[in-house]
Amino acid sequence: MSQQFSMTASHAKGKSGDDLIFATSKEANLAAMKFGEENVVNATIGALFTDDKKLAILPTVDRLIRDLPAEEISAYAPIAGLPEFLDAAINLALGEDKPEAFIRAVATPGGSGSIRHTIWNYSEMGDKVLTSDWFWGPYKTIANENLRDIAIYKFFDEKDGFNLQDFEEKVNGLLKKQDSIVILLNSPAHNPTGFSLSDQEWSSVTEVLKKASASGEKRIILFVDVAYIDYAGTFAESRRFMKYFGNLSRNMLVVVAFSMSKGYTSYGLRSGAMIGISSSSEIAREFFETNQFSNRGVWSNGTRSAMRVLGDIYGNGDIRAKVEAEREELRKMLGNRASIFMEEARRSGLKICPYKAGFFISVPVENAMETWESLKKENIFAVPLKMGLRFAVCSIPTRQIGMIPEKVVKAMK
Amino acid sequence: MSQQFSMTASHAKGKSGDDLIFATSKEANLAAMKFGEENVVNATIGALFTDDKKLAILPTVDRLIRDLPAEEISAYAPIAGLPEFLDAAINLALGEDKPEAFIRAVATPGGSGSIRHTIWNYSEMGDKVLTSDWFWGPYKTIANENLRDIAIYKFFDEKDGFNLQDFEEKVNGLLKKQDSIVILLNSPAHNPTGFSLSDQEWSSVTEVLKKASASGEKRIILFVDVAYIDYAGTFAESRRFMKYFGNLSRNMLVVVAFSMSKGYTSYGLRSGAMIGISSSSEIAREFFETNQFSNRGVWSNGTRSAMRVLGDIYGNGDIRAKVEAEREELRKMLGNRASIFMEEARRSGLKICPYKAGFFISVPVENAMETWESLKKENIFAVPLKMGLRFAVCSIPTRQIGMIPEKVVKAMK
Repeated sequence: MSQQFSMTASHAKGKSGDDLIFATSKEANLAAMKFGEENVVNATIGALFTDDKKLAILPTVDRLIRDLPAEEISAYAPIAGLPEFLDAAINLALGEDKPEAFIRAVATPGGSGSIRHTIWNYSEMGDKVLTSDWFWGPYKTIANENLRDIAIYKFFDEKDGFNLQDFEEKVNGLLKKQDSIVILLNSPAHNPTGFSLSDQEWSSVTEVLKKASASGEKRIILFVDVAYIDYAGTFAESRRFMKYFGNLSRNMLVVVAFSMSKGYTSYGLRSGAMIGISSSSEIAREFFETNQFSNRGVWSNGTRSAMRVLGDIYGNGDIRAKVEAEREELRKMLGNRASIFMEEARRSGLKICPYKAGFFISVPVENAMETWESLKKENIFAVPLKMGLRFAVCSIPTRQIGMIPEKVVKAMK
Repeated sequence: MSQQFSMTASHAKGKSGDDLIFATSKEANLAAMKFGEENVVNATIGALFTDDKKLAILPTVDRLIRDLPAEEISAYAPIAGLPEFLDAAINLALGEDKPEAFIRAVATPGGSGSIRHTIWNYSEMGDKVLTSDWFWGPYKTIANENLRDIAIYKFFDEKDGFNLQDFEEKVNGLLKKQDSIVILLNSPAHNPTGFSLSDQEWSSVTEVLKKASASGEKRIILFVDVAYIDYAGTFAESRRFMKYFGNLSRNMLVVVAFSMSKGYTSYGLRSGAMIGISSSSEIAREFFETNQFSNRGVWSNGTRSAMRVLGDIYGNGDIRAKVEAEREELRKMLGNRASIFMEEARRSGLKICPYKAGFFISVPVENAMETWESLKKENIFAVPLKMGLRFAVCSIPTRQIGMIPEKVVKAMK
C-alpha cells in the first residue's frame, strides 16, 4: 500500500480542520427551516446577537469607521501599528492600575495573531505550552501550526475556584523539562466557561510564577488573553489584576492580548495588539523589535481603519463615553441571559462551570458527544468539547435561554 | 563577558528591523520642510500617489466599502474566506486563460500572508527558497521569520531578458540538495525593477520546471506574486501566461498570490488570496485544507468588508467596469511617469533595469549606499538595495520625474 501522495513539507502533513462549530450551526439552520426558528436553539455562534437575532453592533463604532477620510481606510498602517492605536490599546487594556513596568505594544490581527507571535517567539520548538483543561480550541491549533503542543492543568478546584495547586504542579513539572514556559491564561470572562480569576487568585498565580522564576534560570512568559474583558464588570474593576504584573524579575514577561473584536464589535476588521510588560527596558525593547519583525515576516501590517477608530475613541472622552454606554446595554442583555441560564440550571439540578461573565456557559459532561447528539434531537445545538458542552449565551435570544438547562439534564440521562 | 540577556526562544533571537525605507522617507520629509516640497524628491513610498501628492484611491471602491451593511464590516468572515471573494479572486487573478487544472483558493492578509503560508507549508525547515537577485526585501524577512533562507539566481541575462540559464542552474542545484523547492517569482511588473516575463519566457520557465519535476521524485512549488498585475497591460494580455500552469505533473504546484492592495487601492484593508493550481484534485484539496488550517493557526480569519467588496465588484459588470476605468487613469499616469524616467535615462546615458510596467524603476549601482548618500545631498531620496537603487515612480509627481536620471548619473561618479 503506497502512502497518499502529498505536496506539503514533512512538518505540514495531514492538516485539516472539520469545523464542528460551523457544521453544527449549519445543522441548526436546517432544523430552523424545518421546525421554525422559534423552536430551534442555535447555541454555537460566538458573537453577540440581539434578541432579534441580529449581530449586535456598537453604532458609534460603525459610524466612526464610515466617517473616516478615505486615506485612513486605504493606506497601509506602519508594520508595528499606528502609534495612537498602540497607545490606546495599552491604556484601554491595562486600565487605571497599570503595572510598574516597561510597557510596549505591537498591533496584531485580533487576539489570534498575538497568540501566534507569543508561542512562536517565546517557546522553544517542540516544547509544551500550558493552558487550562477547559480551553478555547484554537489555542491547540495555533500551537500545532507552530510545531508546539498544549499541556493542561485542571482549571477548577473542588470549590469551583482557580485550581492553584494543579497550576503550580504543572508549571513546575514543565520547567523540569523545559528552559522556558509559555502559559496561556484567558481571564476575565473565560472562553468557554465564563470564569474570571478573583483578585486573590491573580495574586496567587503571580506568586507561583515569581517563585518559579526566582532562580533566574528559567524564562516564564504569562500570556493573558483579555478578549472578553469589556463584558466582565466595570472598566476599573475588571483590570485591577494588572497591578500584579509590575516589578517582576527580568526573566518573567507578561503579554496581554488586547482585541477589538468583542469589545468594539469589530470582529471582521481583525484588529488587536500584544502588550509586553517587563521590569527590564531591554526586554521590553526586545519584545517590540521581535514582534514587529514577526509582523513583517508573517502578515506585514494590520487594518488601518480599525486602528484609527480606536485611537479616535480613546482620544475623545465624549465618543468613548458613548461607546461605553452602548456596550453597557449589550453587557446587561448578556448578563440577563446568563442569570436566567444559571437560575434554571440551579432549579433543574444541572451542574455548570463557575460562570462570572462573558459570552459562554459550559456544562461538564462525561460523554459530551452523546449528550450533544441527544440535544440536537431536542433542537438544541451546542458545541461539544472534550470536557462538556458550550452554550453561547451571547447569541441565544433571551426568550430561548430558560428552557435549555432542563433539556440538558434530560439529554444527559 | 556575559551575553545579553534575552527572553526569546533560541530560534527567535536578535530579530530587528531598521526600516530603511521608512527612515529615508522621514529624512525626505524633513528636507521638504527645510528646502520646500517642490525641491525634494521622495522616491521611497510604495503606493500610488497623484501628482497632488495624495494617495490615489479608486472612488468606487471607497464608496462600496462605506455603503456596506454594518454586519458586512463587523462580522467575522469564514476562516478560509467568503466564498464569493474566493471565486472573484480566482477569476480576477487568473483571467480568461485559466489553466486546465483543479483550482482552490484561501484568503490571506494581502500577498504577504500567502508568502508565509507557501514557505511554511511547502518548503522544509532550513531549506532554501529560490528567488531572483533583484527581489522585494520582505521575501527574505518572511523566509527568515519561518527559519528558511533565500537563494538567488540572476534575474536578467546580458540582453536584459529573463536569465533562463541561471534560473535552470539554480533550480537544479537546489534540487540536488533538497527534496522540494519553493520558487518566489514576482511578475508581471516586478518589484523592484518593473520587469515582466514575456509569454515566451513564461513558457520556458514552466518547461524548465516540468523537466525538473519529470522524475516525480522532487516537489516543485512555483509561487507567482501578481501584486501589480492590474498595472501591467490589459486584463487579458497580462494574464495570458496563466495557461502554462495547466496539465502539470502532480508533483508540481503553482500558487498565485492575489492582492487587493494595489489593484483595488486597498492597502490598509489587508485582503488577498493564495490560489493553488494543480492537475490533481487531491493536491488541490490538500492545498485548501492545509492553508485553511494555517489561517486558523496564525491570524484566524481575514477582513470581511474587503472580501465582500471584491465579491460585489466581480458580481456586477457595471461596477467592475467603473473600477477598471478609474484604475486605467492611474495606470496611464504611472505609465507616463515611467516613460519620462526611461526617456531621460536614455538621454543621460543611465543604464536602468528592464522596466515593462509597475510601481518601481531600479538602477543597477555597484556602490549603492554611496550613491544613495550622494543623492540625498541632492534632495533625491531613493531606496538602497544590494544591487542598486529603487525609485518609486508610483509616488513621485510627474513634474519631478524628469530630473532624476541625470542626478543619478552625477551621484554615481
